[in-house]
Amino acid sequence: MDELSREEVEAERELYGPFTQSLRELVDAAIRTTVPADEVRSAHAEIRAITERLRSAPMRTTYGVDLRTDGRGRAWGNAVVGLRNAIAPPLTVVQEGRGVRAAFTLGAAYEGPPGSVHGGVLALVLDQMLGEAAGAGGKPGMTATLTLSYKQRTGLGDLTSEAWIERVDGIKTWARGEIHSVDGLTVEAEGLFILPKWAREAMASGDPGTPSPRFFE
Amino acid sequence: MDELSREEVEAERELYGPFTQSLRELVDAAIRTTVPADEVRSAHAEIRAITERLRSAPMRTTYGVDLRTDGRGRAWGNAVVGLRNAIAPPLTVVQEGRGVRAAFTLGAAYEGPPGSVHGGVLALVLDQMLGEAAGAGGKPGMTATLTLSYKQRTGLGDLTSEAWIERVDGIKTWARGEIHSVDGLTVEAEGLFILPKWAREAMASGDPGTPSPRFFE
Repeated sequence: MDELSREEVEAERELYGPFTQSLRELVDAAIRTTVPADEVRSAHAEIRAITERLRSAPMRTTYGVDLRTDGRGRAWGNAVVGLRNAIAPPLTVVQEGRGVRAAFTLGAAYEGPPGSVHGGVLALVLDQMLGEAAGAGGKPGMTATLTLSYKQRTGLGDLTSEAWIERVDGIKTWARGEIHSVDGLTVEAEGLFILPKWAREAMASGDPGTPSPRFFE
Repeated sequence: MDELSREEVEAERELYGPFTQSLRELVDAAIRTTVPADEVRSAHAEIRAITERLRSAPMRTTYGVDLRTDGRGRAWGNAVVGLRNAIAPPLTVVQEGRGVRAAFTLGAAYEGPPGSVHGGVLALVLDQMLGEAAGAGGKPGMTATLTLSYKQRTGLGDLTSEAWIERVDGIKTWARGEIHSVDGLTVEAEGLFILPKWAREAMASGDPGTPSPRFFE
């Protein structure tokens, strides 16, 4: 695969960002619609036709992390932060001090108990946040353990999450994080992230395909 | 809201099940497509039009758990098992002995590291499975704590999960669960589920809106 220029990356972002957002809105509308059955059937037929056209030229694999960019890689397929993944809210994670932070909104598609975010969706978000915190500290890794403590129900709507490194010991990084709603702290998490052996070997050998922090997210 | 007959529920299942499946295929196709930009733009315009029509008659709230059925409630909006939620794989969870089991497939939309299931998605699935195990044992509850231990990477593809109750003490239920891929055991989980006070009060008062196990999933 050829390396992409900054302009090409930006053009793709402008194309796929709003496109994927339209899919998120469709997913939400599909959950909550009460239109007549015939309307659902005709939407169904149209969606199948669109899918068929998009499938006429598919990648041979899943999206993964696109390494055709300047070192960092694009995690556009990622289930939490992926610009091209309609399942991802998506989170925009920013570095803040030695940690990371994200503000995001979760609607009907992320529901568990009525009106509440699914407990597992909160775990999904926190796994990503803690992994990003580990990566931001220069020690990316795969999740080894993750422990979640739910303090109160998390209502659907606007949320924030923060995560930071607690401790580093060689290839191991311990990170902590939280989710806050309008009601305050709702979930706490701690996790251990470990750089896998194959990645250490690649990094040590100076392999040009060296995994960047985003590779593990 | 009026109670639905068994026939009405089945008719809705036959309508919305395949419709939502078509959305899951669209989400997958959108991540992996390499069609020209103009094709993406026309798909985008069509998707917006479909969304607008579906939105002409929306529910006033999120889907939640539809209680218009015979006691159990329908968690069709749920982020893991929801028949009407395109984010849900969806899991079909069956009772097996005193525990629960599900076989499912995770594709491009559930990716974290290239070719692997996102660690947080595995947490999402296990939170649901452990909660279902608690509910199947007659003690539904909200997640209080959840601890995940990742044994090896989980490749995208066909997976199975099992969960069972470890111990019950009053309103508290401890459950355990696992995920297996073609490579064997990949993740272990344990969690504590607690029936919230408002639900205990509703159940004690014989409130007809008494939450069924599915209410917490």
